[in-house]
Amino acid sequence: MKVYTLGGYEEVGMNMTAVEVDGEVVIFDMGYNMENVISAEGHVDEMTTNQSLEIGAVPEDEPVLDKNVVGIVIGHGHLDHVGGIPKLAGSHDCPIYCTPYTAEIVERGLDDDRKNAGNQVIRLEKGERMDLTGNLTLEFAHVNHSIPDATLSLLETPEGYAVYGNDMKIDRSPVIEDTTDIDRLKEVGEEGVKVMIPGTTRVDSPGRARSEKSVEVELRDVLESCYDAGGAVFFSTFSSQISRLNSVIDANDGRRKIIFVGRSLKEYVESAEKLDLIDTDQIEVVSYFDEVEEKMDEVDAAREDYLVVATGNQGEPGAQLDKMASGTYPFDFEEGDHMIFSSNVIPTPVNEANRHKLEKKLEEKGVRIYPGIHTTGHAHKEDHRDFINFFDPEHIVPSHGTIQKLGSYVELAREEGYSLGDNVYISENGKCIDLDE
Amino acid sequence: MKVYTLGGYEEVGMNMTAVEVDGEVVIFDMGYNMENVISAEGHVDEMTTNQSLEIGAVPEDEPVLDKNVVGIVIGHGHLDHVGGIPKLAGSHDCPIYCTPYTAEIVERGLDDDRKNAGNQVIRLEKGERMDLTGNLTLEFAHVNHSIPDATLSLLETPEGYAVYGNDMKIDRSPVIEDTTDIDRLKEVGEEGVKVMIPGTTRVDSPGRARSEKSVEVELRDVLESCYDAGGAVFFSTFSSQISRLNSVIDANDGRRKIIFVGRSLKEYVESAEKLDLIDTDQIEVVSYFDEVEEKMDEVDAAREDYLVVATGNQGEPGAQLDKMASGTYPFDFEEGDHMIFSSNVIPTPVNEANRHKLEKKLEEKGVRIYPGIHTTGHAHKEDHRDFINFFDPEHIVPSHGTIQKLGSYVELAREEGYSLGDNVYISENGKCIDLDE
Amino acid sequence: MKVYTLGGYEEVGMNMTAVEVDGEVVIFDMGYNMENVISAEGHVDEMTTNQSLEIGAVPEDEPVLDKNVVGIVIGHGHLDHVGGIPKLAGSHDCPIYCTPYTAEIVERGLDDDRKNAGNQVIRLEKGERMDLTGNLTLEFAHVNHSIPDATLSLLETPEGYAVYGNDMKIDRSPVIEDTTDIDRLKEVGEEGVKVMIPGTTRVDSPGRARSEKSVEVELRDVLESCYDAGGAVFFSTFSSQISRLNSVIDANDGRRKIIFVGRSLKEYVESAEKLDLIDTDQIEVVSYFDEVEEKMDEVDAAREDYLVVATGNQGEPGAQLDKMASGTYPFDFEEGDHMIFSSNVIPTPVNEANRHKLEKKLEEKGVRIYPGIHTTGHAHKEDHRDFINFFDPEHIVPSHGTIQKLGSYVELAREEGYSLGDNVYISENGKCIDLDE
Amino acid sequence: MKVYTLGGYEEVGMNMTAVEVDGEVVIFDMGYNMENVISAEGHVDEMTTNQSLEIGAVPEDEPVLDKNVVGIVIGHGHLDHVGGIPKLAGSHDCPIYCTPYTAEIVERGLDDDRKNAGNQVIRLEKGERMDLTGNLTLEFAHVNHSIPDATLSLLETPEGYAVYGNDMKIDRSPVIEDTTDIDRLKEVGEEGVKVMIPGTTRVDSPGRARSEKSVEVELRDVLESCYDAGGAVFFSTFSSQISRLNSVIDANDGRRKIIFVGRSLKEYVESAEKLDLIDTDQIEVVSYFDEVEEKMDEVDAAREDYLVVATGNQGEPGAQLDKMASGTYPFDFEEGDHMIFSSNVIPTPVNEANRHKLEKKLEEKGVRIYPGIHTTGHAHKEDHRDFINFFDPEHIVPSHGTIQKLGSYVELAREEGYSLGDNVYISENGKCIDLDE
Repeated sequence: MKVYTLGGYEEVGMNMTAVEVDGEVVIFDMGYNMENVISAEGHVDEMTTNQSLEIGAVPEDEPVLDKNVVGIVIGHGHLDHVGGIPKLAGSHDCPIYCTPYTAEIVERGLDDDRKNAGNQVIRLEKGERMDLTGNLTLEFAHVNHSIPDATLSLLETPEGYAVYGNDMKIDRSPVIEDTTDIDRLKEVGEEGVKVMIPGTTRVDSPGRARSEKSVEVELRDVLESCYDAGGAVFFSTFSSQISRLNSVIDANDGRRKIIFVGRSLKEYVESAEKLDLIDTDQIEVVSYFDEVEEKMDEVDAAREDYLVVATGNQGEPGAQLDKMASGTYPFDFEEGDHMIFSSNVIPTPVNEANRHKLEKKLEEKGVRIYPGIHTTGHAHKEDHRDFINFFDPEHIVPSHGTIQKLGSYVELAREEGYSLGDNVYISENGKCIDLDE
Repeated sequence: MKVYTLGGYEEVGMNMTAVEVDGEVVIFDMGYNMENVISAEGHVDEMTTNQSLEIGAVPEDEPVLDKNVVGIVIGHGHLDHVGGIPKLAGSHDCPIYCTPYTAEIVERGLDDDRKNAGNQVIRLEKGERMDLTGNLTLEFAHVNHSIPDATLSLLETPEGYAVYGNDMKIDRSPVIEDTTDIDRLKEVGEEGVKVMIPGTTRVDSPGRARSEKSVEVELRDVLESCYDAGGAVFFSTFSSQISRLNSVIDANDGRRKIIFVGRSLKEYVESAEKLDLIDTDQIEVVSYFDEVEEKMDEVDAAREDYLVVATGNQGEPGAQLDKMASGTYPFDFEEGDHMIFSSNVIPTPVNEANRHKLEKKLEEKGVRIYPGIHTTGHAHKEDHRDFINFFDPEHIVPSHGTIQKLGSYVELAREEGYSLGDNVYISENGKCIDLDE
Repeated sequence: MKVYTLGGYEEVGMNMTAVEVDGEVVIFDMGYNMENVISAEGHVDEMTTNQSLEIGAVPEDEPVLDKNVVGIVIGHGHLDHVGGIPKLAGSHDCPIYCTPYTAEIVERGLDDDRKNAGNQVIRLEKGERMDLTGNLTLEFAHVNHSIPDATLSLLETPEGYAVYGNDMKIDRSPVIEDTTDIDRLKEVGEEGVKVMIPGTTRVDSPGRARSEKSVEVELRDVLESCYDAGGAVFFSTFSSQISRLNSVIDANDGRRKIIFVGRSLKEYVESAEKLDLIDTDQIEVVSYFDEVEEKMDEVDAAREDYLVVATGNQGEPGAQLDKMASGTYPFDFEEGDHMIFSSNVIPTPVNEANRHKLEKKLEEKGVRIYPGIHTTGHAHKEDHRDFINFFDPEHIVPSHGTIQKLGSYVELAREEGYSLGDNVYISENGKCIDLDE
Repeated sequence: MKVYTLGGYEEVGMNMTAVEVDGEVVIFDMGYNMENVISAEGHVDEMTTNQSLEIGAVPEDEPVLDKNVVGIVIGHGHLDHVGGIPKLAGSHDCPIYCTPYTAEIVERGLDDDRKNAGNQVIRLEKGERMDLTGNLTLEFAHVNHSIPDATLSLLETPEGYAVYGNDMKIDRSPVIEDTTDIDRLKEVGEEGVKVMIPGTTRVDSPGRARSEKSVEVELRDVLESCYDAGGAVFFSTFSSQISRLNSVIDANDGRRKIIFVGRSLKEYVESAEKLDLIDTDQIEVVSYFDEVEEKMDEVDAAREDYLVVATGNQGEPGAQLDKMASGTYPFDFEEGDHMIFSSNVIPTPVNEANRHKLEKKLEEKGVRIYPGIHTTGHAHKEDHRDFINFFDPEHIVPSHGTIQKLGSYVELAREEGYSLGDNVYISENGKCIDLDE
């Protein structure tokens, strides 16, 4: 078995890994690199594949271009896992496999020609098994992350399983979904895992990732305090964080009208609604300028009747929160209004500056700010140790991180008896690891 | 009305403030300064009052020594609020007023002579009112903190209330107790508050302090994961954190035998049991060396039958966890055992070194560590803003912090319309503020 | 004596303080607040006084508007000390006093009408004494900072000296200037100082501020290493940092042609040249687009012949370095070129993002970066202690900082025997301290 | 050529690497791991080799135990490079090669039997070449670090040079020594380097390491300020930092009597004196208790006549500074005395706590503290890039650091065109890299 480490081995973002067995190649994820896209000040939608490659927006897929690629497997719908599909999938005449929620996102990015040509999007429910080639069988196992329908991809091969789990956590108190399917993971571990390819984002955080339920309790308290104090209440999280959106709707408990504002919220929520992951009866979703303008005028007139859920928690210029704080709409923040940030600031200097500017605008108007009502979607050190114990893999290829993060995973693997270069590896983008050497 | 800012105005610890109205003085709190005690390498129990004063272990009380002190009011039972009583209370021929749980702690520190002489300890339930002098009436209002029976002290005077609230938070999802009595605070605010004296420990943390219930959810998840993985499980929190101890007992849900190990755990739990704040039927408490030795031998023999709750979460040399990790008892940590730290490391270099040494010992034996399953007992910025809004005090004297922390509180007070030197003050230990000037 | 604390008592920037003795008022500094100007996305040049006040760009001077202001005294030429003059000086029919280099900067900001009307700019050499009113005498004492001709303003009054020293350090190994005039400061201390008003920027940094000479040694080493390695060499510091500019010219020692690029460099260097503070024979200064374009074309053709000194060390969008890195000119950075940042990043999120973006662009082209070849212009804790000892002032009013910084100064003053509210003060913008109460 | 990465590949400390060519093995360095020694609370001097191995005090040398080891080459005299010699060298019947100053230190650690038996210590001057076996030739090249006689070890082999440079920097303004011998390094680079083995301690610090001369300027300023202010003056640096000790003697310039206090100072200074690296005419060195007691009594009587240089800058309990601050000697610190720390705090929690306790004791007595008058002895990122360019090695094996630090070096090597696993490697303790595979 060979593992091609194509993207996400020198950075966060741009994930892409391929596994080759008996001449058949399966690609896992095709992400893009948000920071390089921003830095190039371009619109990735308008770039060709070559332009995207040149600025480092998508992984260099040359090592697998001439291979017999039999499937593209997408673990979940975040852009660092699906964002490269429109640029890279077309090179391969094979289906894209994913769970239903992920499929919704993938299909939004693909034009119709592509969908009808080689890159058919095939929906595979978690727990179902799909024979890819006679030799290879694919199954998605349920894991917790921070988007619905996140999975660990289990590829059964004649040499044992290849397990691709780049991004996941174990949430023992989840919201609207089950805990990571530990039983199935252990079964697979007993059947024999040749290689596990885990993400490493938070492997150097000690202990365990906190649960969604624990955040929901916190969110409920804060919302309660806002309603007690009066004033307009604004809330923002990542648009794909459907569990959190359910939590805030539940916490509201019918007391205020809820409006969701912004294009990405609209898209992710519509996809979630199709799959019964959110109940939109209690919410109104607006995204076009006129719609938003009208709604914000209503909020301005009756600010204590509304809970506004808006995009732009990173302070992105031009996102809805930035617009609202800048006076784009017939709405003014007032002293005693509330802004709940149910997210972290993704730690890049640009995000930090954007968010700082947004908070400064809000503070100057006397808005009360509640930041960090949030938990990570990524396994901490002890969660990672569990995954190693569940699968007991022969080999581990840590992924999704800088070389320092991959190194931190190796430190953990050492504690569990692995040895660098023998059965745990630090790779680079573009490299191939032959596990049988 | 005059406010004597005697201790806790240049440091965390050693709280003591006095309020004078019409020639009658009420003292609030008599704490001690843990760090100076440690630094002096002495035993505060064996020091005279003068020795304690000299090393800065207790506040200099000279400004009120010759005053007509009519009561000593203790807000809650932490050492930085009660630790100075044995050294300083004897100078005043007046009762000590406190809630029942606090009274237990105060009485443990006083010798019998003192209790029977001037410094009678008078228990006052929250919500009850006590006429101190005809002129002054005392009431304790319930607040959340991190110890049972924590209070805001409300002193009604002819000039309006003096409100002493040094340390408190608002927990909307508490464990074994009610939320801070907001209704009563607002009533008092409407009756008229002359001065509020709040602590400032976390005024520069944004948003709100997280609830005990949110921690309980987290704790439950971690405990579940430990039980799933097998091995011995150890847990440590601050001994006076009775809510947290209830949470861990609840989370265990009868599955393992629970033993509490350590002298301070024994004392705080016994006091809590008297007041029905903890149910000790399900736990066994040991503190003498022989008892502990015997129990740890049992744990060693049947490690998966026990949940061990021990003192020493700061890594204090000589505390039970340090002893256990150092091989003092017939017990050895093994790979796959678990250590849950349900606390933060109080951020001093000495604590950090102690805790580091403890964790290193545990890690070398393969113990899995879960740190920081914890929330603060101190109001964050928006909680503090609420207290200002509840009471709408004429004057604010921020307390319990370095000058920088007091300054951070002033920044908040400015946002609420206060002005430095006019109605919000930065004081020093030993100073007096005349509110009527 | 009364001290009006008008600006710089709640922030860094926007310094303005006034001292009143016997009905005569002297104003020290009229700065502006860079961050609020940026945040308002306006051009301060085009704002009226009222607009500037509204966005917090300049201090609210209402408390002294109707007073008998007899002089405006400017300590040095940085914008947080002179930037408010064009908005605020016109309200007072009195001269502006400053040292020659500061005068150059002040006059650039004033229109001719103003200069010829009330606000005549009067040059006063350091060590000269000027009788302002018969009652008040002004003298500037030499101090080190990070701009030429920085001073401590000594106002002799019938009640003793008022000493305004808001920004200064003691550099025992300066470049092109003398060490702070310690002898004169001690003399004034012996004559009797009623009040000292020091800045507080780095009072919480331990020890002493490092000297310019120590930086020069470092700079010389780095330049040497760049010349050894070959490639184009770029250098950037603050444009008013004339000592540093001298150091880089000296370090070059005639080996490469030096060009200075940028409008602010041109202005500050021209002023310095007039006063013989820099020798421009060895440098060429360009600022208009065509000039720069032509020069950069030459650099591109003979990159090892040039040392380019450019504006934009904070990564400011539109400054010369940003333009050069963005391909504005016929010049491309190449692998092995060098960028020396002889500055710190002024720690705001916006600066950090700008600088990050600039460095990313340079790094992608293979430019080698040497950051932080720099020292502060502000006294550290032990330097501040010296100033207290030199002057032995009756009163101290710490200035130029957030309330936390003012608090840190008070901690130092306490160590030297001062007591908060008695003889060391924490004030607010807009307040007045009556020293005789 | 094979490279055995025996120690220092998972930690700072305990360096040991071996190179095998044609069946002949040369070992570079035999260090020990200070932190593990402290943690085990043992005395490494009294441990057997096996005990030392067990607690991780010295590297596991099993991979080379049965090899034909023809020489042990020691690059410089720090304990993380020489500390393991007494435990590990005896297994090999071969000489120890080092420069004269290093030899002094190595010989202090070896008993006479060992020296006279197999492990003869052979002094090799920098620039001399020594034929080890007919096949292998050794030369030491001069590099700057933070101890005299530090070297890069150049092993010429039939396959090209193996260059071991684990710890070094380039100081273009050194004190009492020359700049790193760049010309010789480039020559070797042209002759052909098969492998370079650099340390990585500061590869993630940007720019260049600051020079000793730059520190000397700073030190001179601080000393000047202390002498101006009066009072006793204390100074502490690492005892092997002979350049710094020269700087302080020079800066004193005969004005005060200098006494050196402490055993390790005595040892390192005596070795330095033998080699004319320090002039002890102007200093008096004391280390026995009675000697120190007598001297400190003299200092107490005439505090302004002395400059005391003492061991214990990390706050180590029992070192001379700790004793002095704790009242062990007939000397009391007074308000206005001075303590110059010409070192950094080596960043472990235990050091930070020790140093904090020491500073607290000093501050309580009013001693003025000047910390961090220091520069690193380790190459920063751009210095490391130079070494790569000087040698242009076929392979690079980064050493002396955690896996994250090794990873940071790989990031640099990537910028210079290297590729992980092909010609730059991340290894582990105990592994062997075969460069010819």
